[in-house]
Amino acid sequence: MKTITLKSPFDMHLHLRDNDMLKLVAPLTSDTFTGAIIMPNLVPPVDTKEAVTAYKNRIMDAVSDKTFNPMMTLFFKPYTKEFLEDVRDEITALKLYPAGITTNSEGGVESIDTIALAPTLNAMIDLDIPLCIHGETNGFVMDREAEFMSVYEELAIAFPKLKIIMEHITTKDAVEMVQKYDNLYATITLQHLLITLDDVAGGMLQPHLFCKPIAKRYEDRDALLNIALSGHPKIMFGSDSAPHPKHAKEACGCAAGVFTSPIALQVLVELFEKNNCLDNLQKFISDNACKIYNMKPSSKDVTLEKKDFIVPKAYEAYGETVVPMYAGETITWSIKS
Amino acid sequence: MKTITLKSPFDMHLHLRDNDMLKLVAPLTSDTFTGAIIMPNLVPPVDTKEAVTAYKNRIMDAVSDKTFNPMMTLFFKPYTKEFLEDVRDEITALKLYPAGITTNSEGGVESIDTIALAPTLNAMIDLDIPLCIHGETNGFVMDREAEFMSVYEELAIAFPKLKIIMEHITTKDAVEMVQKYDNLYATITLQHLLITLDDVAGGMLQPHLFCKPIAKRYEDRDALLNIALSGHPKIMFGSDSAPHPKHAKEACGCAAGVFTSPIALQVLVELFEKNNCLDNLQKFISDNACKIYNMKPSSKDVTLEKKDFIVPKAYEAYGETVVPMYAGETITWSIKS
Repeated sequence: MKTITLKSPFDMHLHLRDNDMLKLVAPLTSDTFTGAIIMPNLVPPVDTKEAVTAYKNRIMDAVSDKTFNPMMTLFFKPYTKEFLEDVRDEITALKLYPAGITTNSEGGVESIDTIALAPTLNAMIDLDIPLCIHGETNGFVMDREAEFMSVYEELAIAFPKLKIIMEHITTKDAVEMVQKYDNLYATITLQHLLITLDDVAGGMLQPHLFCKPIAKRYEDRDALLNIALSGHPKIMFGSDSAPHPKHAKEACGCAAGVFTSPIALQVLVELFEKNNCLDNLQKFISDNACKIYNMKPSSKDVTLEKKDFIVPKAYEAYGETVVPMYAGETITWSIKS
Repeated sequence: MKTITLKSPFDMHLHLRDNDMLKLVAPLTSDTFTGAIIMPNLVPPVDTKEAVTAYKNRIMDAVSDKTFNPMMTLFFKPYTKEFLEDVRDEITALKLYPAGITTNSEGGVESIDTIALAPTLNAMIDLDIPLCIHGETNGFVMDREAEFMSVYEELAIAFPKLKIIMEHITTKDAVEMVQKYDNLYATITLQHLLITLDDVAGGMLQPHLFCKPIAKRYEDRDALLNIALSGHPKIMFGSDSAPHPKHAKEACGCAAGVFTSPIALQVLVELFEKNNCLDNLQKFISDNACKIYNMKPSSKDVTLEKKDFIVPKAYEAYGETVVPMYAGETITWSIKS
């Protein structure tokens, strides 16, 4: 049977939530990934050393593989250099949310003022802490990311030594921007390599494919797919896997987020194989991230085999139920047990 | 108390469904409207004289006001002139759906071939039967209506004596097109005067605001609002009120349609008042339709008063439950009882 081994796969953008949902979803990442960048948008946000270490401990209690590396992030706000020095060893990055732009981002920054933010950003440069950004404005839903390009550009120019990660990019504009400045990098999710707004709202409305940033146009999807398939050194896989309880996703006013952790590697292999780019998947899933974040890969390898995997209709445990992307559908690759 | 009286209000695009849903929703239109164009996309579609008369009878059984005028339509497909002559007195228009474009449109036309459709369209001209069109392609969801403009243009030029109604227009492009040819007219829904894609998917996902054509951009909404507020003689109110059972709207894979019948007049008065255009509402809600369709207004007047109306969270009867737009919210105008 055809197999492929991915060395030390990383998910460079992950939401693990907390409490029972954390207990349900953490193993679904740690089963296959060697580590992940853990997003800090809990309620309240993770913005103290104590919150970081306590959350990390809860994650380590929840994961199935105790070698799993949860790379913690702080919720971005103005911090002193002393604070960042003190917390440096506990974190991998800071994550900036414009206020109110996505789930639990109400405490985010109201405006991105390079002068006001300079003390924090300069301290981050001194301490070699990357800045991860949810790059959307409060504009029209289809334009929010494109409108944010000028902010990325301003930051990239004003802070050339700051490592800036454009998180979960969804547009052709972002694919162009990431290549324009040396200090810009990007993550791309699984779903944005696959779907457009047509999949979310072109036929029936599909809440399980609704996320922020929302899936865009075909030309955007194709630009994302092309740069990911190419193994471009600035592009990392970041699932943005964002579980919400089934009842909250399938209700009026459903929250944004697609849950992909347990299917991501299988679907990525299928997608890269279909496009004759399997050789580049190792870069997208691990090597590029190791270089960008100065990380060493672990010895954790994951082997997939070309064997049908029927995606469960839901994952349930601890009283929580979450529906994955492709629920009930068949993927042609499975994790080899 | 401030009041306004609307003379003989018409809803020039309405879905009444069938069976229990018909019994629930028909009175919610006939309570306030003098008549409505009834869309034929039942399962199976209304495409015989017998189906038209039987459906009309079921509607008349269901309405609260027996003076209500259900203006019946046939589901467009190639018909002979003899057939159309025979059914002429029973119908007001034919409704063309491109195949698969919306609820129960699978039997619609596969392509709009002006040569193949000429016999039917010429017979319609001879018999003075207007053609109502759901004008969308199968393209990207945000482009479908704009892409259809060339079809409207081709039909308008090829059949200058055919009265063509561009149904539920949602774009600036359509607002421009309707003014370009003498034989083009349009309906506009309530929701497309009010919302954009941001309301559907810019915050949480809102299934009760999901419809086809999907709500577009701010500049589109503003163009629609401006032409409606102006009382432009080619523009008619057509609610496209499209009830689906609550459980089907609030589930994975929800169907397209916004239910507005019981709130439409109140919200329109509020909207036209807010924009200082109350004097033009009579044209939008009745006078233009009477001229375009050569109808006589009835003597049914509806008086609204400036008094808060709290929209019910749902309308329930006959085992059916349907959630209206603005459920639970307050509108500043009420129907005077």
